[in-house]
Amino acid sequence: MTLTQVKDLSRHVGETVTIAGWLQNRRSKGKIHFLQIRDGSGVVQAIMGKQDVSEATFASCDNLPYEASLSVEGSVRADTRAPGGVELLVQRVTIHQVPSEEYRISKQEHGPDFLLSNRHLWLRSRKPHAILRVRDAVITAIRRFFDDRGFVCLDAPIFTPAACEGTTNLFEVQYFEEKCYLTQSGQLYMEAGAMAFGKVYCFGPTFRAEKSKTRRHLTEFWMVEPEVAYATLDDIMNLAEDFLCAIVKHVLEHRRPELETLERDLSKLERIQKPFPRMSYSEAAAFLQSRGLPFEVGNDFGAPDEAAISGAHDCPVMVHRYPAGVKAFYMKQDPADPRFALCVDVLAPEGVGEIIGGGQREDDLKTLENRIDEHKLSREPFEWYLDLRRYGTVPHAGFGLGLERTVAWICGTEHVRECIPFPRMLHRMYP
Amino acid sequence: MTLTQVKDLSRHVGETVTIAGWLQNRRSKGKIHFLQIRDGSGVVQAIMGKQDVSEATFASCDNLPYEASLSVEGSVRADTRAPGGVELLVQRVTIHQVPSEEYRISKQEHGPDFLLSNRHLWLRSRKPHAILRVRDAVITAIRRFFDDRGFVCLDAPIFTPAACEGTTNLFEVQYFEEKCYLTQSGQLYMEAGAMAFGKVYCFGPTFRAEKSKTRRHLTEFWMVEPEVAYATLDDIMNLAEDFLCAIVKHVLEHRRPELETLERDLSKLERIQKPFPRMSYSEAAAFLQSRGLPFEVGNDFGAPDEAAISGAHDCPVMVHRYPAGVKAFYMKQDPADPRFALCVDVLAPEGVGEIIGGGQREDDLKTLENRIDEHKLSREPFEWYLDLRRYGTVPHAGFGLGLERTVAWICGTEHVRECIPFPRMLHRMYP
Repeated sequence: MTLTQVKDLSRHVGETVTIAGWLQNRRSKGKIHFLQIRDGSGVVQAIMGKQDVSEATFASCDNLPYEASLSVEGSVRADTRAPGGVELLVQRVTIHQVPSEEYRISKQEHGPDFLLSNRHLWLRSRKPHAILRVRDAVITAIRRFFDDRGFVCLDAPIFTPAACEGTTNLFEVQYFEEKCYLTQSGQLYMEAGAMAFGKVYCFGPTFRAEKSKTRRHLTEFWMVEPEVAYATLDDIMNLAEDFLCAIVKHVLEHRRPELETLERDLSKLERIQKPFPRMSYSEAAAFLQSRGLPFEVGNDFGAPDEAAISGAHDCPVMVHRYPAGVKAFYMKQDPADPRFALCVDVLAPEGVGEIIGGGQREDDLKTLENRIDEHKLSREPFEWYLDLRRYGTVPHAGFGLGLERTVAWICGTEHVRECIPFPRMLHRMYP
Repeated sequence: MTLTQVKDLSRHVGETVTIAGWLQNRRSKGKIHFLQIRDGSGVVQAIMGKQDVSEATFASCDNLPYEASLSVEGSVRADTRAPGGVELLVQRVTIHQVPSEEYRISKQEHGPDFLLSNRHLWLRSRKPHAILRVRDAVITAIRRFFDDRGFVCLDAPIFTPAACEGTTNLFEVQYFEEKCYLTQSGQLYMEAGAMAFGKVYCFGPTFRAEKSKTRRHLTEFWMVEPEVAYATLDDIMNLAEDFLCAIVKHVLEHRRPELETLERDLSKLERIQKPFPRMSYSEAAAFLQSRGLPFEVGNDFGAPDEAAISGAHDCPVMVHRYPAGVKAFYMKQDPADPRFALCVDVLAPEGVGEIIGGGQREDDLKTLENRIDEHKLSREPFEWYLDLRRYGTVPHAGFGLGLERTVAWICGTEHVRECIPFPRMLHRMYP
């Protein structure tokens, strides 16, 4: 039996097709049942007239509960008032299962804890379904952007012997007789990759053992990290700008109905065009102080600071040249003023805050060794990394983009936990 | 300064361009230096005539060591004898770094331990470079195949509370005050996804704490797992067949030079066309016995058995309906003979063995509960999974494909450790 997907029904007007899915909603009016059937690709209304089917078939749908699984054979009729522009006139129905218990997720409001504990079912609801289809499109946009520009996908390892920036926020794993850690960034490995392939990226899960319970934190999230040999801070800022524009454009082209389901203000996304505003850390700090925010120059920005900076613009804001002291050891210092690092954070608008962090890497062996010492890190686990400065070191730069924060921004979703299929948080490991 | 990539040089014949890369090889003949420069996208020969550059420039390249980093400005000349069809006539050179130590990876043979310990540099060599570019193309082919067919990418979680099939081979993680495990399959989550989106896949790292040191095992490897609602074993076998054909076709189209570098017999890949041979477990067992192999009916196949079966065919072989006892609890039993499971393993040719495992899932609640009990598993961690059978259960099926084994097969590489950028094995965590 060949199944037709609901999303393709408009190409089959006048034909008889079979769809298979689940009952999402139902109402009856005299001798007609109106069955809303979802199959994962879309939702269609199936109209069952008492005179068009057997008595038993009609009766089987009298009290059919939500989430019953069923296949429907019927003819496709164009109807401009229907969502998707079509409806199905039922000829035959096969009911696969009538749930014996009432479906747990009702049309009424549920609290987030209940919904997250039922994530395996909640995925079927309109909003999570729309968000995760946007996420899927963002992933595709990311892959295509780098593919089209000749980047090689080079997966970074998950098991790492040493920490990029200290072990405080790392998850420890018993690795046979040893200990190891779950990666919090693939960057160092991508630097090795850039020296071999010129332009690389990794795109995989990363981990932070942070006890934060903010709306911006997950213990497990996906990050994409491009790294480019012979690139400077400016190059990587241009890349980040093109990258974000490409992602938003792709989502607007391929997920407009989902964004409408989410009641997203599309005009805000349509305004995402380069050039993005660029400002130095010092300019941003002055801006915060001019707004009367209690910001102390020299510190990193907090969430309210980021919100204030990005809130003043329609497009993502690129803040560059932070004080070297608040940034990681591998950041290259600005030759024009070594108190600052050649780095950039991209802050998404509407108060979302940082979605990209990156910059130019220190490429001089001696300077890098000193920086490792200054950060009180052991040199030994970084010997392989230092080799990259021993054998043909070149200027290079890259960045990391957090997938779920980006999806949250594009969807206009408050909390990143809704932007990953099965969120992992401080007290959340199930399902 | 705009850089041109070596792979694009043939589009710039007659023009003056700048490339930036590393010295891969060098020879001199009287008043000419021949510099082989790699930039990650390709290798080009740069020809430097003593009369065309300053004396200092010419002298700087007299003893330039391997892996020195340099930019070269020059005019592109077509030369059919050159690899890539072009060479570069040098006008100007900027040397970024002359390594002070001799490059560790020489042209002579090195043992695998030395090379793996220097993986961060070894990536620059011809063979790893070619294999990982094939891997990149396989990843693209996988993503595009599922995108084109309307699958939604739905990442499975890495942190999992319970084990799919026992905890013996699981890595344990200290998750704040609790313990959790690293995923060894996203399948159960994909089943939840299939009920919400119809067709889904996940593609991420998976983990096995196996102490195996065979050429087919890694502790960390990438797996892609599609799952389809309303699909049967036959549907999923057809999907696997189309999938493997699409991957091989994409690689042949986009990575032919890399396969030639690897001295891969392309005719063997060109022969990968559907239909693939299909045989039941019982037929495969009879075949092994007819060949005199010491195979005991009822057992799972070992590596030599798989090699014998797949070695008899040009195409991957699909072996279906294994004894239910050797397969996981969630496999649906064959209604025609419940001693067997509705499952399939796809064995790649040339002795590579299993690259795909999958099948139809048990969709009946009672049967599944009994199977969990029979496997002496606790029901409680599977309650959410059982919900999928309570609320609109439908026939469904899926499979998992191991990325590195697939890359090993396509590249004709002996060991999977060469098919991932930074392999993790029993005694290998560095770099």
